[in-house]
Amino acid sequence: MTAPVELGWRMGAPRLSEDPDAWSAPRVRERFSALRESEPTAQVWRGDGPASELPYALRDDIDAVVFTPLGGTASMAQMAPMTWRQSLAANHTDGIVVLHKGRIVYEHYDGPLQPHTPHVCMSVTKSLVGTLAAAEMVAGRIDPDALVTAYVPELEASAWGNATVRQVMDMTTALEYDEDYTRPGAEVWSYLRAAGQLPREPGVIDPAGIRAFLCTVQRNDWHGEAFAYKTVNTEVLAWVLCNVTGQTLQQLVQERLWRPMGAEHDAYFGVDGKRLAGAGGAFNGTLRDMARFGEVMRGNGFFNGRQIVPEAAVADIRQGAAPAHFARAGYALLKGWSYRHMWWVTHNAHGAYCARGIHGQGIYIDPVAKMTIARFASHPRAGNAGLDPTTLPAYHALAQHLLATP
Amino acid sequence: MTAPVELGWRMGAPRLSEDPDAWSAPRVRERFSALRESEPTAQVWRGDGPASELPYALRDDIDAVVFTPLGGTASMAQMAPMTWRQSLAANHTDGIVVLHKGRIVYEHYDGPLQPHTPHVCMSVTKSLVGTLAAAEMVAGRIDPDALVTAYVPELEASAWGNATVRQVMDMTTALEYDEDYTRPGAEVWSYLRAAGQLPREPGVIDPAGIRAFLCTVQRNDWHGEAFAYKTVNTEVLAWVLCNVTGQTLQQLVQERLWRPMGAEHDAYFGVDGKRLAGAGGAFNGTLRDMARFGEVMRGNGFFNGRQIVPEAAVADIRQGAAPAHFARAGYALLKGWSYRHMWWVTHNAHGAYCARGIHGQGIYIDPVAKMTIARFASHPRAGNAGLDPTTLPAYHALAQHLLATP
Repeated sequence: MTAPVELGWRMGAPRLSEDPDAWSAPRVRERFSALRESEPTAQVWRGDGPASELPYALRDDIDAVVFTPLGGTASMAQMAPMTWRQSLAANHTDGIVVLHKGRIVYEHYDGPLQPHTPHVCMSVTKSLVGTLAAAEMVAGRIDPDALVTAYVPELEASAWGNATVRQVMDMTTALEYDEDYTRPGAEVWSYLRAAGQLPREPGVIDPAGIRAFLCTVQRNDWHGEAFAYKTVNTEVLAWVLCNVTGQTLQQLVQERLWRPMGAEHDAYFGVDGKRLAGAGGAFNGTLRDMARFGEVMRGNGFFNGRQIVPEAAVADIRQGAAPAHFARAGYALLKGWSYRHMWWVTHNAHGAYCARGIHGQGIYIDPVAKMTIARFASHPRAGNAGLDPTTLPAYHALAQHLLATP
Repeated sequence: MTAPVELGWRMGAPRLSEDPDAWSAPRVRERFSALRESEPTAQVWRGDGPASELPYALRDDIDAVVFTPLGGTASMAQMAPMTWRQSLAANHTDGIVVLHKGRIVYEHYDGPLQPHTPHVCMSVTKSLVGTLAAAEMVAGRIDPDALVTAYVPELEASAWGNATVRQVMDMTTALEYDEDYTRPGAEVWSYLRAAGQLPREPGVIDPAGIRAFLCTVQRNDWHGEAFAYKTVNTEVLAWVLCNVTGQTLQQLVQERLWRPMGAEHDAYFGVDGKRLAGAGGAFNGTLRDMARFGEVMRGNGFFNGRQIVPEAAVADIRQGAAPAHFARAGYALLKGWSYRHMWWVTHNAHGAYCARGIHGQGIYIDPVAKMTIARFASHPRAGNAGLDPTTLPAYHALAQHLLATP
């Protein structure tokens, strides 16, 4: 593993928006544990009470758990059996914590990440937003069948002008917006520039700020027929949430999740040039606090002695959406899955579901095995296709191991 | 008082380095309680233990304490007697806390500032750096009579090439560097642009980063003969500190001050484009934690059950420097004062000394009255001349009141 701090990046790197190489490996590893040093951020306060208890019951048998990596895009070498411990390096893991029945059975940090250091969560952020929106939905303050424009009139002339909130929440909108990071002209790059997360390009004028960019996105097909993973949907959902509640996204996460769940550390959001929190991937939290949020979900919304998320909201997430819609997106390694309220639902025998972020961020909840995993990584490749082969089967093998050896 | 959040600035303002009006009143008030939303920052972690106790013994007789504002630059109207309570609005106070014998006797917040919100400390930052350097000095790891270049060879060709560490610590260097914020061409603007705190000017190339700028500053007279308040000296001192300790400034404040003193909240430093913490004015902490740091000093370095700063370092600060050097700077309202290790020493009958930051930031320690004051403000004028008339006599009047009514 690299040790970026020793290579001098901490003191010498230009800020993210001025540095085209900031996202490339292995620099990305050190960035991911100190994103606030490169970009403006907004505080998510943990509150002034004690942190909720995450009791330890560490086990020494987990490193040896063996699993077989998934096929698909994996090379033949990757398909040989692998141990849990081997998977950590293979996945460029920065930190991972496993809870079983509410107790920490495994915890591991590597590289610059420390227990008190917030790490970028990438699209795990989306699941926070989706959970907050689901709670507003079951409380009757957001109607999933209403048009987005009922809450955000500014989007009338955009692709979302005739989309419903549910289509946004489950990402079945049809957008002229390409999320493929491997294609230089993809609209995702304009989004990232508008959000202040990439340097501006000479001769290219991007809208100033996330919301101005959203207003430019156009429709390219009928909404509601196919799952298509596009980050801008989460930005729209956050806009809905902010208008319905009259609060900023950072206030909502602070007051409705981080404070009530007894977070151990402050967290933060990256913000755009208009000081708007990025809902698609800009949340940064500490590993144990991400695990706490996972435990909130595993407890069907109940954690730290109180109901934090309505039970009905969690149930609605866990039931998933239509796998037929999801299948049209063609994920070779995620057969039978669906995407519901910004969560990935496996529909496996354990009813597992997860939050997923590029470069290897994740929260994985296995209700049957009573297991919650939170994980940070800095895989040099953005997509999950390089990560899924050595994470998803490892998680399931560990769940089965925990069920077999309680 | 203005309520900037209601005026929409929180959601709508461009980032600081792109916004030439960011420093102007009344916008500055909301900025000062949320600077991280405009600029990259580095975390100062509070640690994972409990916050040190600051017991309450609130008194209702303080608002009515009367004092006479200082003359000098003040108008005749300001010179009429004023109450403590009246002074808060006159000074654009965002928050103030007063401790007497270690107990909070007065605490007040206004505008967007909350107890858990870090506020910009401006040049109070310098006193943190000076205290850390004084501690290294009494420990024998920094020789005050050595040349700066013994620790930072990169400064050989700059003004500091023939300056001693003590001249830097007491700001008696002679620099071709104008700190006058009212003069558009003053070098302080180049410094701020190099530090990423102001927008770049078309056609003006500033060095990239604080340290590159320091290397360009030239000498204009003999060092060691007159006090001249120039922020770049603190940046040089921080460079010395970082080289001597092998740590970043944020690590030093975290490990040597904030964690041992039992800080209640995380703090942070603004960083330049090279992720270097600004030592001259970029620290942001919460009001009660600034008061804790004041109590560390009032306790001659002892607080929270331990010796945090060496007693000899505090003694060296309290004794002050040569008032004759200070007098040459011509501060009409600060007769008889001196500047020692980045602290302002009044040499009054109570032996009071203070940390001071533009727009009204301050820590004021009165050892005789056993009184510590921490204060944040957003006065529309940068300099202290508009603030001193209604703060310094108020602090002394309160000290006398506390002595008279223990």
